[in-house]
Amino acid sequence: MLALACDIGGTNTRLGLVRDGILLPGSAGSYANDHFEDFYAVAATYLRGRGENRVDSVCIALAAVATAEGATLTNRDWTIRRDRVAETCGADRVDFINDFEALGYAMGQVEKLETQCLTPGRAPRQPGPRLVLGAGTGFNASAWCPSRFGGAPHVVAAECGHMTLPLAGAAEFSLQGALSAGRGRASVERALSGRGLFEIYQWQCAEAGRAPCVATAAEVSRLAVARADRDCEQAGHTFMRLLGRVCGDLALAYLPFSGVYLSGGVSRAFAGPLVQDPTFLDAFRAKGRQTDFMERFPVHLLLDDRTALQGCAEWLRLSSG
Amino acid sequence: MLALACDIGGTNTRLGLVRDGILLPGSAGSYANDHFEDFYAVAATYLRGRGENRVDSVCIALAAVATAEGATLTNRDWTIRRDRVAETCGADRVDFINDFEALGYAMGQVEKLETQCLTPGRAPRQPGPRLVLGAGTGFNASAWCPSRFGGAPHVVAAECGHMTLPLAGAAEFSLQGALSAGRGRASVERALSGRGLFEIYQWQCAEAGRAPCVATAAEVSRLAVARADRDCEQAGHTFMRLLGRVCGDLALAYLPFSGVYLSGGVSRAFAGPLVQDPTFLDAFRAKGRQTDFMERFPVHLLLDDRTALQGCAEWLRLSSG
Repeated sequence: MLALACDIGGTNTRLGLVRDGILLPGSAGSYANDHFEDFYAVAATYLRGRGENRVDSVCIALAAVATAEGATLTNRDWTIRRDRVAETCGADRVDFINDFEALGYAMGQVEKLETQCLTPGRAPRQPGPRLVLGAGTGFNASAWCPSRFGGAPHVVAAECGHMTLPLAGAAEFSLQGALSAGRGRASVERALSGRGLFEIYQWQCAEAGRAPCVATAAEVSRLAVARADRDCEQAGHTFMRLLGRVCGDLALAYLPFSGVYLSGGVSRAFAGPLVQDPTFLDAFRAKGRQTDFMERFPVHLLLDDRTALQGCAEWLRLSSG
Repeated sequence: MLALACDIGGTNTRLGLVRDGILLPGSAGSYANDHFEDFYAVAATYLRGRGENRVDSVCIALAAVATAEGATLTNRDWTIRRDRVAETCGADRVDFINDFEALGYAMGQVEKLETQCLTPGRAPRQPGPRLVLGAGTGFNASAWCPSRFGGAPHVVAAECGHMTLPLAGAAEFSLQGALSAGRGRASVERALSGRGLFEIYQWQCAEAGRAPCVATAAEVSRLAVARADRDCEQAGHTFMRLLGRVCGDLALAYLPFSGVYLSGGVSRAFAGPLVQDPTFLDAFRAKGRQTDFMERFPVHLLLDDRTALQGCAEWLRLSSG
């Protein structure tokens, strides 16, 4: 059984070959979407480059809700039709899974992925649940749970970016006012996303009575990490504190004794100094009488570009077994 | 295979007989803990009353973390030793599960339980996850997830009572100050519990510049439902709004397309007028652009005293299969 795993993002599409549920080492490739008219062209180019005429099945991970016909990306003007994928790839079966579900399935084989542990003293309890969460264009999470009865693991799909942003204290109350202006509420991803980082920065400048001198989230992120601008730095701290708090809240919702994994573009942009800074882990732990309990969750950065492909491979393995 | 299912609460212990994973109809009995010296005496009395000398196994649901030796109740001064339970009941095996995990396992057969639908227009999507949550002495939740690969369902255990209480706006910011005074933070169960209802009432009185005239949460609840005291009524509204919001946030965390079930003493005390009042469901839905999405989760009250026993039966069925 040869299958094609696809991770379609807003900017890049990654593909890989899966044989009998295992992502073939060295098979992963990444393509800039801008260079292609549609997804079918990317898939055809990849298969031709690998010398494959066809595959038996295809699993596509993407930020979209799939219907019987297919799916339309939420972060790019691409529609992906099930029948055209089947035709392009010669496949009998085409599955769509949510991008965060794919990350969740990948947690079953996280030891194969490049990660960095932020809490070296904490030992994972195995088998136990794992939580993967991340901020990028939006925010989401999913949990991988080993079966207690000897069967396949379960992945809990979620829409955590739409949960209420948990805020506390006078300064954050002011931030809530800024983030919810004209919207009636502030969701988690209103703060924990690229755009959220930029809005936190704008609020930070307003609080300090200074005009913003930076125009994009990427620039705020860069200057925050370089400690080159006090408002960017302060916005970065606020972002990391909120990320740590939400991460701790979600740990209480899924009890990931076998590990929390931070993914996503914005999380990764901060991977250097900011996540090492105590702000993030202090906020993760700050659960009153449960502070000691929070020490039972090991926390890692997920640095591997192939995570969603690994998740597609695991999905293919589980669904064909 | 005959088994004993036990649901040990702070006030009452419920027991039932389970044959081949099915709770025997009419076998459930409830005992006031105050009338017994320890749990072993309750179990012995029950078995004698049912004319049973012994059972093959025992499953105990309780609000406690079990160790190899047994468990100590968090809400009563009772220690339950695994070896003494085995001896009392003649059982070869004694399992302990968390009280909310038991409610989660019961969701697999929720159609056997007494429930009341609060959202008659919403059709459950089956098979889909179910969420059970409740406020009583504390607050917690668990999610029941059917397997996507034909195996046993999975129950996600949680500690949702310790998550950050999601607050918004000036009045709630003042409430947050009151609830977190001397504690550094306000958790979900700081508000959503019997004691929480009483603290909300005290804050309500202080805001209105009136001295509290009621001394217990039960009395606040009674007067709120009877609409007999404006501060109690206002506290009840605030409680239901926060319960609805937390319930909506947790629905986004577990996507219970097959139903949300509200359990617990405090939730049930409000089961009449207050939960019918739009406050609760309005707050459940109030997720900005996701308001329509929230309509996909049917919401029910769980009125059945045997829910945890049903969960023990399901646990016994799954773990012996």
